[in-house]
Amino acid sequence: MKKVGIALLGLGVVGSGTYRILQAKKEKIERDYGVSIEVKKVLEKDLSKAEALGIDLNKVSCDINNVLNDDSISVVAEFFGGTEPARTFLVQCLERGKSVVTSNKELFSKHWPDLENAARKTGAGIYFEASCGGGVPIIRALHDSMQGNDVLEIKGIVNGTTNYILSNMTDNGSDYDATLKEAQRLGYAEANPSADVDGYDSTYKLSILSSLSFNKRVPYTSIYREGISKVTKEDIKFGKEFGMTVKLLAISKNVNGKIEAHVYPAFIPNDHPLAKVGGAFNGIYVVGDNVGELMFYGKGAGDLPTGSAIVSDIVTAATKESHRRYPFILEEAAQDFNDDFISEYFIRLSAKDESGVLSTITGIFGKAGISIDAMVQKAGSNGRATIAFVTQKTTELTFRKALEELQSASCISEVSSVIRVEK
Amino acid sequence: MKKVGIALLGLGVVGSGTYRILQAKKEKIERDYGVSIEVKKVLEKDLSKAEALGIDLNKVSCDINNVLNDDSISVVAEFFGGTEPARTFLVQCLERGKSVVTSNKELFSKHWPDLENAARKTGAGIYFEASCGGGVPIIRALHDSMQGNDVLEIKGIVNGTTNYILSNMTDNGSDYDATLKEAQRLGYAEANPSADVDGYDSTYKLSILSSLSFNKRVPYTSIYREGISKVTKEDIKFGKEFGMTVKLLAISKNVNGKIEAHVYPAFIPNDHPLAKVGGAFNGIYVVGDNVGELMFYGKGAGDLPTGSAIVSDIVTAATKESHRRYPFILEEAAQDFNDDFISEYFIRLSAKDESGVLSTITGIFGKAGISIDAMVQKAGSNGRATIAFVTQKTTELTFRKALEELQSASCISEVSSVIRVEK
Repeated sequence: MKKVGIALLGLGVVGSGTYRILQAKKEKIERDYGVSIEVKKVLEKDLSKAEALGIDLNKVSCDINNVLNDDSISVVAEFFGGTEPARTFLVQCLERGKSVVTSNKELFSKHWPDLENAARKTGAGIYFEASCGGGVPIIRALHDSMQGNDVLEIKGIVNGTTNYILSNMTDNGSDYDATLKEAQRLGYAEANPSADVDGYDSTYKLSILSSLSFNKRVPYTSIYREGISKVTKEDIKFGKEFGMTVKLLAISKNVNGKIEAHVYPAFIPNDHPLAKVGGAFNGIYVVGDNVGELMFYGKGAGDLPTGSAIVSDIVTAATKESHRRYPFILEEAAQDFNDDFISEYFIRLSAKDESGVLSTITGIFGKAGISIDAMVQKAGSNGRATIAFVTQKTTELTFRKALEELQSASCISEVSSVIRVEK
Repeated sequence: MKKVGIALLGLGVVGSGTYRILQAKKEKIERDYGVSIEVKKVLEKDLSKAEALGIDLNKVSCDINNVLNDDSISVVAEFFGGTEPARTFLVQCLERGKSVVTSNKELFSKHWPDLENAARKTGAGIYFEASCGGGVPIIRALHDSMQGNDVLEIKGIVNGTTNYILSNMTDNGSDYDATLKEAQRLGYAEANPSADVDGYDSTYKLSILSSLSFNKRVPYTSIYREGISKVTKEDIKFGKEFGMTVKLLAISKNVNGKIEAHVYPAFIPNDHPLAKVGGAFNGIYVVGDNVGELMFYGKGAGDLPTGSAIVSDIVTAATKESHRRYPFILEEAAQDFNDDFISEYFIRLSAKDESGVLSTITGIFGKAGISIDAMVQKAGSNGRATIAFVTQKTTELTFRKALEELQSASCISEVSSVIRVEK
């Protein structure tokens, strides 16, 4: 049987989960995939983590040279997170001909070209199934199942933390701040939650998914980004009246060769398959021009779900004779990005509770050529009314102009929320 | 660039769709996968089909020897359907070292060992992504993404025809017979609909999916099978009152090493992800012990969706250096199958509209140790009432005994329906 030595860089939550799976499924992997995988070296400064897993401490060190210089190691799985030292170490591994496996979406979206360049020198492989969607095999689906398609659109819930927060706000009618605090207490959100709630994590993942889908480099910096911190329980309540649920969506479209890539909170109809993706689950919707709609659903994070994706990459890297190359990732990202994209919008505003307000609103939007789909008005306090409405499709620039006019109308006290609608 | 010659056996709906995709995506496949695929030979007696696609008629014949003897052909895609001559032709192709691609679930579930034996002689590959789930890449997910898991359960809607019929009965409150006729008129059901509505097609697919999931041969003959023809609009109406939707499910479980494999119509809760899989869509739910729940969703049939899966197999077969083997499929299917499996049940019956009926029912089930979860009674005509109820979990044998006793109770006129419930 083929024997393959591997190294694990870091024994955090996913690193430890990966080790446990490799031990538990050792015989199964040998029997069904014909390869015996042995962990030869571990990089970890906290020896107690290695002890807890029963790893021989002679294998554990803090020196990457122990990995680089071990010729029996041909696959290296990285669990540090962040860009350094992960980038430097993985480039060194690839230059030594060791294939790398990572779930590090930040590293990958920022430095994929460095990794690809290093890998080309030796033919080593780069595997990153766990970087998007946790346990959901979305990278492999885009790699290996869409050869007969041009991907038209990819639309997903790819961040479990924000989906947990928005699902809880929806189910319990609770505030954003209180729900975030609860998520932090339960370990679903970081002490500094910005990477998740401000949408950075989703842009990293969308950059990877879009690049693969369109075979074009889509840098994360070219992705429009809005986080969830401005979504209120009032918006969610009005959304329910319109039969819609709010989700943080990562959306990429190929519109006549122009890429439109966005991360923003959006209302989707309650009967859309993504509306049912709750809690810490991820759901990714892909449209191909021949296959039509596909959806992939599963756990987006966690030691064992993400470890499962890492193990599938380790076994693939260990058994493949030649590894996939990504020529497009080395090309300059010269594609046009479309700023004036088409959306529908949910608007919530506070207005004087007097006649003529509704006709002012419909007048402003009507003049701009934007139809209004549905509207709800509720009496408030201090002679104010709250009005929420949903527009039909319009371009971003047209909408922004109408919105400005709305904000300056004398009967409108405040435009409280603007949230996109995706159907 | 690597050039690969292929043959298409048959130009039916999917064969023609495959040819159209190969033509439309020729440049994309060359650019992104580094392989140029050329259709060298076509087996088809209806020349007008070849003409409609613009295929050079010199490539078209009815003689398999034209394919077998052409050494420039290394991949053969089969679209005949049924077992013969598909089996004989594909065995001959494999023995000549030509890899085969097929969507033929009947052939595959009945004769997979013949194909595997033939392929072993030459190392040729066997590809069957399109046999289950149409365009949904479920075979590849089970192959390539579950190495770190034991599959615990696979549960799917894998037949578009029956899902179309049941979805329409549910949405329109229409009869089974009328809905089947309409489906036949629209081309969603065959003139002889038995393969679909009696569940055979689903057992073929479940046999393939279960064998791959459990790495054990699960013959389609060992799968319990019930079709949808006995599902009535009355059942669906009562199901709605209990918050449930009826679907034809293909379910396989690995329960302590015993395989439980069933195809039957079952009620599932309206909030289950599979409940939203409507019309001609397929949805397949997989549970792994590490990754947890995964779901895959997409179009289960049609020229382009199924053609998309065929093309992904053709490209994979054309670019892989060595092909996957299936040792388990040659083993005798010695595993135990569990007849006394656990289910919940929906029962609809007609009874005398008099006091004591409900206590008779609860008495019979209570004595058998079966709890009743929910019950609805409606007055009927002729002094009869219709009663529907849902049991909690019980074993098949215990339930059958209680059901017999129910049928012989003097106050029960008729047990009209028994449908399983899956939560």
